[in-house]
Amino acid sequence: MDKIKTSAYRVDTNIRLKEVPTRNDLGTSEDELKDRLKHIRKKLGYFQDIIYAHGKYSVLICFQGIDTAGKDSLIREVFKDFNSRGVVVHSFKTPTDLERKHDYLWRHYIALPARGKFGVFNRTHYENVLVTRVHPEYILGENIPGINSVEDITEAFWHERFEQIKNFEKHLAENGTIIFKFFLHLSKSEQKNRLLRRLNLPEKNWKFSPDDLKERVLWDEYQKYYEEAINVTSTEKAPWYIVPADNKKAARVIVADILYDELRDYKDIEYPTLDPKIKKHLDNYKEQLNKE
Amino acid sequence: MDKIKTSAYRVDTNIRLKEVPTRNDLGTSEDELKDRLKHIRKKLGYFQDIIYAHGKYSVLICFQGIDTAGKDSLIREVFKDFNSRGVVVHSFKTPTDLERKHDYLWRHYIALPARGKFGVFNRTHYENVLVTRVHPEYILGENIPGINSVEDITEAFWHERFEQIKNFEKHLAENGTIIFKFFLHLSKSEQKNRLLRRLNLPEKNWKFSPDDLKERVLWDEYQKYYEEAINVTSTEKAPWYIVPADNKKAARVIVADILYDELRDYKDIEYPTLDPKIKKHLDNYKEQLNKE
Repeated sequence: MDKIKTSAYRVDTNIRLKEVPTRNDLGTSEDELKDRLKHIRKKLGYFQDIIYAHGKYSVLICFQGIDTAGKDSLIREVFKDFNSRGVVVHSFKTPTDLERKHDYLWRHYIALPARGKFGVFNRTHYENVLVTRVHPEYILGENIPGINSVEDITEAFWHERFEQIKNFEKHLAENGTIIFKFFLHLSKSEQKNRLLRRLNLPEKNWKFSPDDLKERVLWDEYQKYYEEAINVTSTEKAPWYIVPADNKKAARVIVADILYDELRDYKDIEYPTLDPKIKKHLDNYKEQLNKE
Repeated sequence: MDKIKTSAYRVDTNIRLKEVPTRNDLGTSEDELKDRLKHIRKKLGYFQDIIYAHGKYSVLICFQGIDTAGKDSLIREVFKDFNSRGVVVHSFKTPTDLERKHDYLWRHYIALPARGKFGVFNRTHYENVLVTRVHPEYILGENIPGINSVEDITEAFWHERFEQIKNFEKHLAENGTIIFKFFLHLSKSEQKNRLLRRLNLPEKNWKFSPDDLKERVLWDEYQKYYEEAINVTSTEKAPWYIVPADNKKAARVIVADILYDELRDYKDIEYPTLDPKIKKHLDNYKEQLNKE
């Protein structure tokens, strides 16, 4: 099986989504991919325990992707060997009334992982420059002063948002958050297959909404805005990774491998050492217990 | 009584705190100051109702000042005619364990006022470049990766924080928060008077802590760091105002006047108009009720 090269998926220079493959089987079979995932997620789970004990870094993992790209099942599979104590998944839906009473980053800010923990964002703050860009009328619901009609939502508005998002992530990185942003890159034809499956299999029906087809019509617009958002906001401390998503099992392995490879690079993350003053007397403590 | 000129208190160019007066009686008596405050806070309360109904802007009012500068009583007096529904005061104390598990802005972010509301910060996110700068060992409690001893807390660290704070406020301003930052500027001799009063009056005793005297010894350091923080972070959209605080009653009038003067400049803030489709039929609704 091909060895994953993390940097091959990271967006370091401007990319064109059309030129990035949506399928990569990693040169192997489904069974081998399953085994590989089991192997790597166990190692990830072990490392998570060290990050928790170390208690200085937070890890923020963002997932974006078009409907049916496989975000939910990927999250289910990749984080299976994590201690639930140390990982919180937030699935961001349409903002609630309370959330819309605040600036658009507020609901994401309050959901950020504490030190020592992993936070997984299933859909993220990037929806604010994606779904709202395809449907600018949604912005009007945010009640921003000066934005009274869609004509007020200019290119400058979106570039201001990109800057806001970059500053937000920069601040987090500078204060100890390790940030991963994954785009699950699906082909339009594979989306068709997956939507048909939702329609054909009774136990999958509940996941279908007529809106899925409405959004599918806007495919090219979504791709264009994803491409711009990824190019503008991929930074050294908060990079985007584009993960070919047509093969679900391979996508999971790629994500898990990237996480493990990158996290291992933080050489300062280790189990804390016991205070030497306590350590010196470990034998005394043992004796005390044994004498009982 | 002298008319307040808002711009006279705003920090537009670099200031030296030593050259800014700590006392300004506004050329009048205590009684007239009381009347003036009653007058202006009523107008402010009326305007607050419009901001609430308009529902697009939030107003964030930050108060900083050395111990005994009069923050608590100023907040009590200035916002007396506000509808409590529309104003929330947050007094930030030593961070809790939970708060310290997050980046230092987190607890301030979650306390931000919703659209239509006033949020008053009694001590603010600026404590992170003030008390922690005088006592850099406090920073170690934040558990930031790479900051393992006070030697790691360089000038560059503080300048990074200033940038983070400026970006945070810029983001808020761009998304509809009106920001005021007030520094209550007290003289060292007036602090002595106020501390003695705390010691002499039994009903004030509870406000005294021996730490007050320890911090007083560090007066010059605090002034130096206040001066830098104010100069570096006073921006057009998030300006600092330096309020002479030796005369408490005058300080309250100055703050209330600045708030009212600046807020009135937002010409777009007004009661929302009723949907024309509903308005057209107001007579029908009246008739319907009258017929009952």
